[in-house]
Amino acid sequence: MSTVNHQFRLAARPVGTVKASDWNFTEETLRDPAEGEVLIKILQISLDPAMRGWMNESKASYIPPVGLGDVMRALAVGRVIASNNPKFAVGDHVNGLLGVQEYAYSNGQSLTKIDPKLAPLSVYLSSLGMPGLTGYFGLLEVGQPQAGDTVVVSGAAGAVGTVVGQIAKIKGARVVGIAGGADKCRYLTEELGFDAAIDYKSDNVKAALLQHCPDGINVYFDNVGGDILDAALAQLAHGARVVICGAISQYNNTTPIKGPANYLNLMVKRATMKGVMVSDFYPRAAEAGMVMAGWIASGKLKTREDIVEGFNKFPETFQMLFTGENNGKLILKIAEA
Amino acid sequence: MSTVNHQFRLAARPVGTVKASDWNFTEETLRDPAEGEVLIKILQISLDPAMRGWMNESKASYIPPVGLGDVMRALAVGRVIASNNPKFAVGDHVNGLLGVQEYAYSNGQSLTKIDPKLAPLSVYLSSLGMPGLTGYFGLLEVGQPQAGDTVVVSGAAGAVGTVVGQIAKIKGARVVGIAGGADKCRYLTEELGFDAAIDYKSDNVKAALLQHCPDGINVYFDNVGGDILDAALAQLAHGARVVICGAISQYNNTTPIKGPANYLNLMVKRATMKGVMVSDFYPRAAEAGMVMAGWIASGKLKTREDIVEGFNKFPETFQMLFTGENNGKLILKIAEA
Repeated sequence: MSTVNHQFRLAARPVGTVKASDWNFTEETLRDPAEGEVLIKILQISLDPAMRGWMNESKASYIPPVGLGDVMRALAVGRVIASNNPKFAVGDHVNGLLGVQEYAYSNGQSLTKIDPKLAPLSVYLSSLGMPGLTGYFGLLEVGQPQAGDTVVVSGAAGAVGTVVGQIAKIKGARVVGIAGGADKCRYLTEELGFDAAIDYKSDNVKAALLQHCPDGINVYFDNVGGDILDAALAQLAHGARVVICGAISQYNNTTPIKGPANYLNLMVKRATMKGVMVSDFYPRAAEAGMVMAGWIASGKLKTREDIVEGFNKFPETFQMLFTGENNGKLILKIAEA
Repeated sequence: MSTVNHQFRLAARPVGTVKASDWNFTEETLRDPAEGEVLIKILQISLDPAMRGWMNESKASYIPPVGLGDVMRALAVGRVIASNNPKFAVGDHVNGLLGVQEYAYSNGQSLTKIDPKLAPLSVYLSSLGMPGLTGYFGLLEVGQPQAGDTVVVSGAAGAVGTVVGQIAKIKGARVVGIAGGADKCRYLTEELGFDAAIDYKSDNVKAALLQHCPDGINVYFDNVGGDILDAALAQLAHGARVVICGAISQYNNTTPIKGPANYLNLMVKRATMKGVMVSDFYPRAAEAGMVMAGWIASGKLKTREDIVEGFNKFPETFQMLFTGENNGKLILKIAEA
């Protein structure tokens, strides 16, 4: 067993796009787990847009920022390699906020056992993990699509967007995805069964929404914010539900976030705008996991992970989220088993 | 009886602040009412922020824009002076969209009889009229305040804001009003019983909201948009309801409306943003009118109108809405009886 642990720690609060100098690459000697602790070898690290928000000094967020000098917070899956906690045995696979590092200690709280025989480890970070739960509950509980509704999702080829669109199809909605690039759009319509896809890099999003949603948008699930949110607000149907899940177009801003100028259309269209915070639904994670595992098994819900290998590639891999280079859930694989 | 009717017609679509040249002052000869029609002498005209929106060329609004050359649309109260409609007799007082003119013809549809012995005519344009219904249903149905909640209302000294704040007090909430100037703020706390008032012209609204709403805002009723909406969004309590009623700070913009940069706080605080359109509640107008008339009679709901006299003062009086010069519901009185 290795005796050292490498880590990416937050060296500076980024201004705009994250730079290499915002990270500190550090090395620590491993110790035995203390009473009640387990030691986990991390195998795959989840790279998520929300991590960008955790890097900012912010008073009023849903979770405290990562402290300067702290290991960067991240979801990850790993394997228990030493245990001083009766609930976990060596060899158990687990999922939790383990951080951007090669090994993690945990007292077992908020650590979930997972079974790599039921699904590949990477799926526990995507459809059966946080992004899947976000899409499942955000769409069904907040968006409340009805059969025949037109559902539009932005960031449609991402980890949350693919789940939202496919579940909307399962529930009988017409689904239009907004994504960047012809390949992603083709993936949405040809592989995932979306009714239409809009390429925001080459299409006029407003005109395309008008074309693909002639009766307006009943549910808009927003992962991106900015101009695309405004274009969707302009095309709402009467009584529409707008689900705010994220605003990746705005996370690297050095100027204030661009608020939705068309928000008054909420009034004109008797529409509702509401956020989804996945943590509110953690008590119901098992319910969603069972339903989604069934859909995955029957081929109704396809899941795709973009897996980059190599712990030291973390800084540049993280940037792929913001350039849109990833295809599906972005994961950094750092060990085989 | 006079044989001529004077009118203010829309001469041009205003760019920014409305100018005198955006109006045409015209004169018409009166005729007898046609079959089914009544002829109404207009006594008092309601001046409302929404009128500014009706002057814009806009495809997607809740009501078509006023056509160029058309009489400006406005709510008004008047007296029937000739009737060719069995439902209305000469001498009846009525309320409806009669326009900015001295006389109006109506086929009787969407014309409501009112009783000047029950309340002064001006009250039918304020608390017992459209602004009152907007405040009543917007607060109670959309905002859903609970006893002990902190309710914040902007444009608090206006026709809608005074109703919202007083009803919130009746329902047991703590009420904080945001208004422009020390006089208006004193009126809110000393006359209307608001718990606190913030003068946006001299206070730091964000700091004042923090001070007056230490546990956050449970219901925010917005009439103004812009920076004040953003300040309120920053101070929401968990599960807050944001009621969008108007955005008077933005109506004269020549640049796009400033969207709320802090809208992501809807997500962090599990809050909901929803609009109120008073017309949705017209079928329940009688219910609200009875309840509010009772509150007015018992002194729980105070109503104040700012009445300017003289038909030809319409252009400059209308501007008072945007400079905030009016104290209470702004009304143009053009005839005594």
